[in-house]
Amino acid sequence: MNLEKVAIVGASGYSGEELVRLLMRHPGVEIVALTSRQLAGQTVETVFPRFAGQRYAKLGFIESDVAKIIATGAGFVFLALPHGVAAEYAQPLVAAGLRVIDLSADFRIKDSAVYEEFYGTPPQAPELAAISVYGLPEIYREQIRSAQLIASPGCYPTSVIVPLHPLLKRRLLKPASIVINSLSGVSGAGRSAKTELLYVECNESVRAYGLPKHRHLAEIEQELSRAYGDAVTVTFLPHLIPVSRGIFTTITAAPADDVSPAEIFAALADAYAAEPFIRLLGENGAPDTKNVTHTNFIDVAWRHDPRTGRIILLSAEDNLVKGASGQAVQALNVMCGWPETTALL
Amino acid sequence: MNLEKVAIVGASGYSGEELVRLLMRHPGVEIVALTSRQLAGQTVETVFPRFAGQRYAKLGFIESDVAKIIATGAGFVFLALPHGVAAEYAQPLVAAGLRVIDLSADFRIKDSAVYEEFYGTPPQAPELAAISVYGLPEIYREQIRSAQLIASPGCYPTSVIVPLHPLLKRRLLKPASIVINSLSGVSGAGRSAKTELLYVECNESVRAYGLPKHRHLAEIEQELSRAYGDAVTVTFLPHLIPVSRGIFTTITAAPADDVSPAEIFAALADAYAAEPFIRLLGENGAPDTKNVTHTNFIDVAWRHDPRTGRIILLSAEDNLVKGASGQAVQALNVMCGWPETTALL
Amino acid sequence: MNLEKVAIVGASGYSGEELVRLLMRHPGVEIVALTSRQLAGQTVETVFPRFAGQRYAKLGFIESDVAKIIATGAGFVFLALPHGVAAEYAQPLVAAGLRVIDLSADFRIKDSAVYEEFYGTPPQAPELAAISVYGLPEIYREQIRSAQLIASPGCYPTSVIVPLHPLLKRRLLKPASIVINSLSGVSGAGRSAKTELLYVECNESVRAYGLPKHRHLAEIEQELSRAYGDAVTVTFLPHLIPVSRGIFTTITAAPADDVSPAEIFAALADAYAAEPFIRLLGENGAPDTKNVTHTNFIDVAWRHDPRTGRIILLSAEDNLVKGASGQAVQALNVMCGWPETTALL
Amino acid sequence: MNLEKVAIVGASGYSGEELVRLLMRHPGVEIVALTSRQLAGQTVETVFPRFAGQRYAKLGFIESDVAKIIATGAGFVFLALPHGVAAEYAQPLVAAGLRVIDLSADFRIKDSAVYEEFYGTPPQAPELAAISVYGLPEIYREQIRSAQLIASPGCYPTSVIVPLHPLLKRRLLKPASIVINSLSGVSGAGRSAKTELLYVECNESVRAYGLPKHRHLAEIEQELSRAYGDAVTVTFLPHLIPVSRGIFTTITAAPADDVSPAEIFAALADAYAAEPFIRLLGENGAPDTKNVTHTNFIDVAWRHDPRTGRIILLSAEDNLVKGASGQAVQALNVMCGWPETTALL
Repeated sequence: MNLEKVAIVGASGYSGEELVRLLMRHPGVEIVALTSRQLAGQTVETVFPRFAGQRYAKLGFIESDVAKIIATGAGFVFLALPHGVAAEYAQPLVAAGLRVIDLSADFRIKDSAVYEEFYGTPPQAPELAAISVYGLPEIYREQIRSAQLIASPGCYPTSVIVPLHPLLKRRLLKPASIVINSLSGVSGAGRSAKTELLYVECNESVRAYGLPKHRHLAEIEQELSRAYGDAVTVTFLPHLIPVSRGIFTTITAAPADDVSPAEIFAALADAYAAEPFIRLLGENGAPDTKNVTHTNFIDVAWRHDPRTGRIILLSAEDNLVKGASGQAVQALNVMCGWPETTALL
Repeated sequence: MNLEKVAIVGASGYSGEELVRLLMRHPGVEIVALTSRQLAGQTVETVFPRFAGQRYAKLGFIESDVAKIIATGAGFVFLALPHGVAAEYAQPLVAAGLRVIDLSADFRIKDSAVYEEFYGTPPQAPELAAISVYGLPEIYREQIRSAQLIASPGCYPTSVIVPLHPLLKRRLLKPASIVINSLSGVSGAGRSAKTELLYVECNESVRAYGLPKHRHLAEIEQELSRAYGDAVTVTFLPHLIPVSRGIFTTITAAPADDVSPAEIFAALADAYAAEPFIRLLGENGAPDTKNVTHTNFIDVAWRHDPRTGRIILLSAEDNLVKGASGQAVQALNVMCGWPETTALL
Repeated sequence: MNLEKVAIVGASGYSGEELVRLLMRHPGVEIVALTSRQLAGQTVETVFPRFAGQRYAKLGFIESDVAKIIATGAGFVFLALPHGVAAEYAQPLVAAGLRVIDLSADFRIKDSAVYEEFYGTPPQAPELAAISVYGLPEIYREQIRSAQLIASPGCYPTSVIVPLHPLLKRRLLKPASIVINSLSGVSGAGRSAKTELLYVECNESVRAYGLPKHRHLAEIEQELSRAYGDAVTVTFLPHLIPVSRGIFTTITAAPADDVSPAEIFAALADAYAAEPFIRLLGENGAPDTKNVTHTNFIDVAWRHDPRTGRIILLSAEDNLVKGASGQAVQALNVMCGWPETTALL
Repeated sequence: MNLEKVAIVGASGYSGEELVRLLMRHPGVEIVALTSRQLAGQTVETVFPRFAGQRYAKLGFIESDVAKIIATGAGFVFLALPHGVAAEYAQPLVAAGLRVIDLSADFRIKDSAVYEEFYGTPPQAPELAAISVYGLPEIYREQIRSAQLIASPGCYPTSVIVPLHPLLKRRLLKPASIVINSLSGVSGAGRSAKTELLYVECNESVRAYGLPKHRHLAEIEQELSRAYGDAVTVTFLPHLIPVSRGIFTTITAAPADDVSPAEIFAALADAYAAEPFIRLLGENGAPDTKNVTHTNFIDVAWRHDPRTGRIILLSAEDNLVKGASGQAVQALNVMCGWPETTALL
């Protein structure tokens, strides 16, 4: 495994921290720069005391400056920035020939009008969205290999697209019947000091939010439509629950005409049996987020409800790993031709 | 307010404890007996240290014996027993002329075949199920006034029936389109020493369970069908989340043909505007279980999703209060002709 | 019970919210004003959705303006403000003849030099600190009756002073041997949007803080010294644990020479047996915060360790009730000559 | 690294699960057997769904039978059994020449009378306690290298002995002044279906327990006495807090006569500066269990309180890693001559 130099831009949040945790143990990676506007000058162990005594503990954060990043000799750059600011880094880095893995939504949406509808402003760099590859290796593995810009998927979308994609691609479900219910841990809301994210506000409580048009719907529908070959519009119901990590998604849908439950279940097995990070728990399985937190696995199970005719799909993942940083490292592994599970199993 | 003597049978679990908490402050009630097979001889403050220093702290638990209960002179008896054992108390108590409020499922299901389908055994006392009144005051207030046996609703069913009942009664929704997603705190599973209910097993975790045919579906569909006037079959997706108390329910459904969202929302307002325990948060409201825990309120809000045409209904309640013991006390208030909010506001 | 008009200044935090919850049910109180700099113009139910559908739901917050408060005709004013700003309200309100119950630390410390040592600035109104009564009814009940200004105790100090006061007053312990360990829920840190109070930062974690000189030491030592009759200096070790509410305090101390454990335990019983809010669990009792949260009780137990000779004192309370707002209402009851448990049992 | 065959006896609890997690990634280890009385016949992925899709997912549990264990060719056996049953395995395994790492208390106490005093029964195999090495590598590294039987330390004792050992060894503290306060997550109580360990019983609550003579005192005092050279008796105050993992310990003690705080702090640095798993956070450091959970680190910090003269020592660890299974693997690494951090960093 030849050593690749890697930089992480905007490494002060939860997905940045998780990238450091994963890449620290990666045998093919040397982290050459961590950048942050607020933390420049501080060390990894100061910002993340968890990492004291480990490989990069003394590494200092530098300014989030493109020239400085390029000067480190990095071949790969992860962008772990808030929405709306990735373009100013991605454009010059891509132009300079670096390969970029962006964890924001900025390059995920191919249709600028859809981006604007859901995010309220036009995309900053539609030409980059056009060349980006959606970084879900189980679906876009081949395109990821040679991609210069990865738009790494959102946490909710991963939990939704993985179970639905093969079924829509094979046209086994009626798209208009799909209802998606998702429960997310609080780290999904980021590390910002907002009153509604305080311990006392979230503890012993649960609420739905972002109804009926959460931003992640844009990428969910884009990818489901690409799979189906026609526009797919779905209901998406996100909830915030008092756990630090984890997403649990429960989807109901009606089978397409003349499609049996067995065909649907077989399609999932067919699509994913060989995937190292998708664990198919089957018709009796019971996903539980505690079995996937701190791992890159997504657990998928299903049921048929003969009373209503509906299919029920269940998935569980860690929103910061398979839903963010783990998936980004998985994409890196694909881009570098390394075993896909490197540093992730 | 004339004083009524009240007994609680099987007072050792969470709903029994909650009954004691509520009735302790009730100006119309004297608790004359608490019974328990395991705890007979112990006092309230020993079993529930929380109640030390309060009104019934020194009251002793007696055996769960019908003759002893009748001998206390109680006019009202709450049964807070596991499913399947209420009949042996309810039959002689009702025969002796006492009024009984049962918190189990044993008398909720009118159709014995449905009971057997969902509970695995025939009902023990179908003749009592036949005369029981389903104890949801917002729907069956008149029947509750004179009822001798109340089948107090389940926690999930309350959270589902309250928002859906007026809409199905007015035939404003397509019943076959209904998908119900519910999240419950762990107290809903009772106070039994099971490995899967241990702190470490539930903390930082979430899972769906009881799919696709949770027992509460029996009473959900019974009541929705009675409202609609025809058989209603729905999808019900219960989840266990790491909070002690609280149920959050999110329901999606398609409006009936030619029905506007505004008509649907108006029907909710029309049905419940005067109800003291149903708080209608409207089209912009965001129910959150932290606002209803330790209260008898159920908060209800709604959305219209023009993209899919679906209506989204949201409800939040405390599973032990409006979902169990609070609702049972509310029924007692109705039965006694007291202000319905007595001891509950 | 004649009706007293009451105002709450700075009602937007957790102790303000708890005051509203308690006073709402108080038969002797009419809340005539809630004030807040940020929330003026909003209603109680908007700020605290929990209170919708209840007595003061539609009451509007007004500006925190002294003239406006006086104009409401309030006879009693609770100040639930951050440290350092109470004086600007207390001075004119007291001058106008209103009786003030302040929940901050501003008037608790009699010695200005001590205040400055612990709080970093001189006290704003030492003349008010001089006339204030420390609002712990179990110790200063007589002075509270006629007090015009109550300095309501801090949450940690209440949990410490209650068990130690009678023992030091009777000189049964060696003061220099006292070590106090306290664990507090996160609401004790207030409702401010700080990163370290985010759900993800506090959940699944515990840390000590404020060592070795937490601000509450000032009032702990003041009151212990007053009880003992000589200066008492102690070690105080506060910790933050992931619960919303509750303080658990464990104190160790050596008995004074020739004092037996039995004498010590008898002194606690002697001091507090008749107190309605102090529950003495004795030598075998096991306080647990879940038995006191949402109540005004403080549970106290003790052990003798013959191996080391030390006495162990244990206490549990709700930091927002007996540790703040409940205790303030208890003081109000004393000031008004009402039964001390009014609205608190 | 030559491959060692390893068996785990009693692998069904939390420390057994953690051993599997750690050894799965160990490059020097092949797990040849997992045993369990209840789980024999089941596979790793059935018992611990978390491990599905990983190296030992399909490995089956066998009976906890000595002959079968020996037949696997294992050279090392971890015993993760409840107290009191390790001897029946350790005796024949040791006799057969296997090297045993026991995670129970059964062989930790050298003095049989002390064992009986704290555990209520005489030790089953005092001859094994006599030859066992207490498995704290930072103290007994040399003896561990060649040990045939390791008595792996308890979770609380590790958190206490690490900070105190070098100070008592150098006689820098007054032993009689030591007061130890510890807070433990619920996994420390094991995976047994007891009512008091239910989610609803532990959540939002904290309590002290085992006062004044918790079993772990036996080994704490044994090791502190060995360090000091004379009998040391201390106060130990364990508490249960609502986290799944983590122990936080706060210790106060008086310096020995004529010993300065600086000498004490220097002794800690001197003892542990080179240790890979002890992170010395120093006089301004703030240990927090979230920084050590899921790692083998123990974080140690200290303060001097000039007001009382006391030293405050703080430590944080994961009770299942450095406090149990991680430390056992660390001992294995030492026994095998491997880098001590193998599979642990």
